[in-house]
Amino acid sequence: MTIILFSGDMDKALAAFNLAIGGASMGMEVSIFFTFWGLTVIRDPKAKPKAKGWMRRMLGFFTRGGAGKLPLSRLNMGGMGPWMMKRLMREVNFPQLEELIQMAKGMGVKFIACTTSMGIMGLGKEDFLPVVDSFAGVATYLAEAREAKVNLFL
Amino acid sequence: MTIILFSGDMDKALAAFNLAIGGASMGMEVSIFFTFWGLTVIRDPKAKPKAKGWMRRMLGFFTRGGAGKLPLSRLNMGGMGPWMMKRLMREVNFPQLEELIQMAKGMGVKFIACTTSMGIMGLGKEDFLPVVDSFAGVATYLAEAREAKVNLFL
Amino acid sequence: MTIILFSGDMDKALAAFNLAIGGASMGMEVSIFFTFWGLTVIRDPKAKPKAKGWMRRMLGFFTRGGAGKLPLSRLNMGGMGPWMMKRLMREVNFPQLEELIQMAKGMGVKFIACTTSMGIMGLGKEDFLPVVDSFAGVATYLAEAREAKVNLFL
Repeated sequence: MTIILFSGDMDKALAAFNLAIGGASMGMEVSIFFTFWGLTVIRDPKAKPKAKGWMRRMLGFFTRGGAGKLPLSRLNMGGMGPWMMKRLMREVNFPQLEELIQMAKGMGVKFIACTTSMGIMGLGKEDFLPVVDSFAGVATYLAEAREAKVNLFL
Repeated sequence: MTIILFSGDMDKALAAFNLAIGGASMGMEVSIFFTFWGLTVIRDPKAKPKAKGWMRRMLGFFTRGGAGKLPLSRLNMGGMGPWMMKRLMREVNFPQLEELIQMAKGMGVKFIACTTSMGIMGLGKEDFLPVVDSFAGVATYLAEAREAKVNLFL
Repeated sequence: MTIILFSGDMDKALAAFNLAIGGASMGMEVSIFFTFWGLTVIRDPKAKPKAKGWMRRMLGFFTRGGAGKLPLSRLNMGGMGPWMMKRLMREVNFPQLEELIQMAKGMGVKFIACTTSMGIMGLGKEDFLPVVDSFAGVATYLAEAREAKVNLFL
């Protein structure tokens, strides 16, 4: 299975990791390609931004914080939506996104960061959590997707 | 064909049912997995909310109304967008979403509601229209998607 | 490969064409189905709107401008986001969307416009750039998707 995680929304990231972990636990080989806003999901909140130019610095600022600071695609309500969603998940013992990322990693899900988006957004390898298996472009994605049974774009 | 309907937007729901009905009329087996905001598409507007806790009650309130009350992903304009879209559809004799749901059901499209999302959102089986064939999780989805020719995430 | 471009956002359109061009350069047959808001991506900005009725005229007005005037799905900031994104792309010598459309066309990517959406939105064949290979509905899409190795919905 391949999943392109294009979105940087908390809810879609949850869906991506839920699918990835489900697949891995059924013995499927799973790759997640993080592209565009999806790159923010695996950004290291502690990394010092080094992007050059005020536009990339501003973009980096607005998308800072990593998996713990993502907005909801709906009912975000200035951050109250994500806060509520995290509490609701905790109440039913559903793991938080940061834990899902580590679970997926531990189960062998491959993490690939899109170099094209990184170039445009001014992100370097040091901006990400140490979960990324490779930095690659569309050719790598398509080579995998062609052989996969399930391909999704989130 | 499998379709994950993650979105609760009217336009994406229309696309999902248009694809599903198209597939069913060509003899394909089609399943729609309703997850997250997509669950609101098949909520029974007449069901009495029983969710516990103010957050789940509030979430239920903001996503009430079912297929007839969904927002547009763009140009929603406080509900005027969906109202206009319904009129435009009527003018060209395109069925409304509520009718598409019944058509899909009548043509054998399988409706599966995601239990994980239901748990987080505090929705029970009684909150849905009597169209749901089964309540299941990611493993059920992947078992079907693996064997399907077309898998889409909306 | 088939790509349904449902979104009219600049960032998703960039992703669609990046994937399509990547696929075509690897020798894959690629079709893009433009539906709903995605139709705005290939609208001819110079075409005179002929839609009838104030609602379709208003819809046409709000989605005018073609590939050069698309919003971002996030951080749109009243048009400043897209302006910045274009500048960032130029700085790293990444082609603009209008160029990607022509590149894809030149590499044999098939452009299919969804007639169902066109009917609802009041768009005619003359409203599009001369890149569209055919005007068709869901049956055409599914016939191709069934035989494709990679199917994505953006």
